[in-house]
Amino acid sequence: MTIYQEALQAHEQWKGKIGVESKARVHDRHDLSLAYTPGVAEPCREIQKDKENAYKYTWKGNSVAVVTDGTAVLGLGDIGPEAALPVMEGKALLFKEFAGIDAVPICLDTKDPKEIVQIVKALAPTFGGINLEDISAPRCVEIERALIEALDIPVFHDDQHGTAVTVTAALINALKLVKKTPEELKVVISGTGAAGSAIIHMLVDLGIKTIFAFNKHGSLHASMEDATFVEKEILSMIEPKNFTGTMAEAFEGADVFIGVSAPNLVTKEMVASMNAQSIVFSMANPEPEINYHDALAGGAAVVGTGRSDFPNQINNVLAFPGIFRGALTAKATKITPAMQLTAAHAIADAVPEERLASDYIIPSVFDKAVVDAITLKVAEMARKEGVIR
Amino acid sequence: MTIYQEALQAHEQWKGKIGVESKARVHDRHDLSLAYTPGVAEPCREIQKDKENAYKYTWKGNSVAVVTDGTAVLGLGDIGPEAALPVMEGKALLFKEFAGIDAVPICLDTKDPKEIVQIVKALAPTFGGINLEDISAPRCVEIERALIEALDIPVFHDDQHGTAVTVTAALINALKLVKKTPEELKVVISGTGAAGSAIIHMLVDLGIKTIFAFNKHGSLHASMEDATFVEKEILSMIEPKNFTGTMAEAFEGADVFIGVSAPNLVTKEMVASMNAQSIVFSMANPEPEINYHDALAGGAAVVGTGRSDFPNQINNVLAFPGIFRGALTAKATKITPAMQLTAAHAIADAVPEERLASDYIIPSVFDKAVVDAITLKVAEMARKEGVIR
Repeated sequence: MTIYQEALQAHEQWKGKIGVESKARVHDRHDLSLAYTPGVAEPCREIQKDKENAYKYTWKGNSVAVVTDGTAVLGLGDIGPEAALPVMEGKALLFKEFAGIDAVPICLDTKDPKEIVQIVKALAPTFGGINLEDISAPRCVEIERALIEALDIPVFHDDQHGTAVTVTAALINALKLVKKTPEELKVVISGTGAAGSAIIHMLVDLGIKTIFAFNKHGSLHASMEDATFVEKEILSMIEPKNFTGTMAEAFEGADVFIGVSAPNLVTKEMVASMNAQSIVFSMANPEPEINYHDALAGGAAVVGTGRSDFPNQINNVLAFPGIFRGALTAKATKITPAMQLTAAHAIADAVPEERLASDYIIPSVFDKAVVDAITLKVAEMARKEGVIR
Repeated sequence: MTIYQEALQAHEQWKGKIGVESKARVHDRHDLSLAYTPGVAEPCREIQKDKENAYKYTWKGNSVAVVTDGTAVLGLGDIGPEAALPVMEGKALLFKEFAGIDAVPICLDTKDPKEIVQIVKALAPTFGGINLEDISAPRCVEIERALIEALDIPVFHDDQHGTAVTVTAALINALKLVKKTPEELKVVISGTGAAGSAIIHMLVDLGIKTIFAFNKHGSLHASMEDATFVEKEILSMIEPKNFTGTMAEAFEGADVFIGVSAPNLVTKEMVASMNAQSIVFSMANPEPEINYHDALAGGAAVVGTGRSDFPNQINNVLAFPGIFRGALTAKATKITPAMQLTAAHAIADAVPEERLASDYIIPSVFDKAVVDAITLKVAEMARKEGVIR
């Protein structure tokens, strides 16, 4: 039986990977009068006086909506809101299992960015945070920014920032191994959508200056005509701005390759043309840009993928549970770039220096200490930045 | 300590009367590959092929959104979406405790009926049913009808139909005691909003012909100028259509009074002017139109209220869990009037004939057999009416 057949059977048995649990008992009339009428009127009145009391008397401080429009689900593409539900339930399950957060799948039957923004704004009173998921680029960036601007609860598009945080964590540790600094690196990135653009933002924050970025048509450069607004932003941040060569040409003398694009775009020979002590993070799913063994055979010093069957799995399950846990703990109103960068450092630091090795640059997603470490750092940074209620 | 102080303390401890529970384990990489990537892609693909497969592989068949705009919460009025959350959580708790249904509170930050309809339509892929709650009349009727028309999952405004079903159940049993038939009754109703209008619809379905209806300004009659569209519908269904007298005048010779309006509108003397063997259901909350003891003292044969501290508590907790359980079990696309009427009969039948008495016309909300009986009958009627998927 393949993993797909097994998963299908398991889903049929679960009929929902999450459910709702009661936290109050309702065994007699007294219980009912506390949890429901007439007693419930009192917390209602307290919240009416001051909305912030919702954090005191309801689930708001621990609840997150996992919102999608089903347009960019896994590698499956625009499969619609109903078909996206198993993934959103899975995400809600991971929120609960890894961080104790009550997350609710919300699959929206609309693809209009303005309408999605309007709906999520209307949903906000019920939730303590919004996790956007599997919304296609560049719409996802537009939607996330509008919501961050409009709402006073954290809004976080995991496909952008969760991925960026995890990649950055892996890179921080890989750089320790190869003994290079961000400033001196030449980086090649394949993929300028949700993940790629957020990664580039974080790499720039990390101090990296030289980045060659590619979308599926080729290199980003100042004279290209069909750049999205996200790609234009990327171009404004990176050097060089006028490279029009191939990805193979960009690989020559590069120190780092980061792939969040499509299978089999990179050859052993391209890796071999990189600088000594090169780093290859090849994360297209399920088939990477170059597979783990070929990248090593090409001479890479450190290789990471998105897959669990190779060492160095770069998976955003490492990031989002702790980031939201930290934001909710601090009652943060935003998840800022500094909070994301500190999360990346917390993940990197979860691998003890003495155990750091080319096949162990990133902790296991099952290492419970990681969530706690991120929570602490993210909450601390939220307080430091003053983005708390 | 009052019940309100006790409830406030309890809510502060709960910090949410409901949470999310994991139904799948995530202890190792294999678990993760089943519940999340890559395995989850398979149920996604199956649902993409046929949306109905969402019922097979997700929580859709057992999930209900409890949707409000916070405009008519308990007796508190328009307190806003944040302040409505404790009530919606309470409702979700009751869904779980009484019927095992996974219900999610959704408190919307908009009061525009068109926008509410648009948002709920967009939310529909995630849920197996929509329970509208505490939305002010007549907007609630407009919103519910538009959603029933637009969606292929059950939409049910509990303040309308849950109340109507429970009142009808109580009336069916009270009529057995006083040995009267629906056709011969003269009924007075105070309240023509959500509950009142739905009750009148059901009474007419039950065969009642003579209904005197009052809103807070006085009797409904054909020449009134400020009737809502809901009140105009009521007028089209009832006789007499031209009564312009007082409620006290309408009480003379009446057989049944049903109050879903405001405290202390009815006196002992008004009850005394009713026909012999009169029935008084006085359900304004928390203070009824006339209190239990005064109604008895006025000569009523059967008295019911909404309160748990008197006999015959007419509470829609009796109705909505079983109605939704039945609708979800049958995969119903609607909750039709016939399904609602059969639910009322199921509730009435839950009081054994031999135990039926003037202080026991309606079963306890803690009688678990009631939900099962309603479930069976509602599912059966959904199949009979062909409103199933």
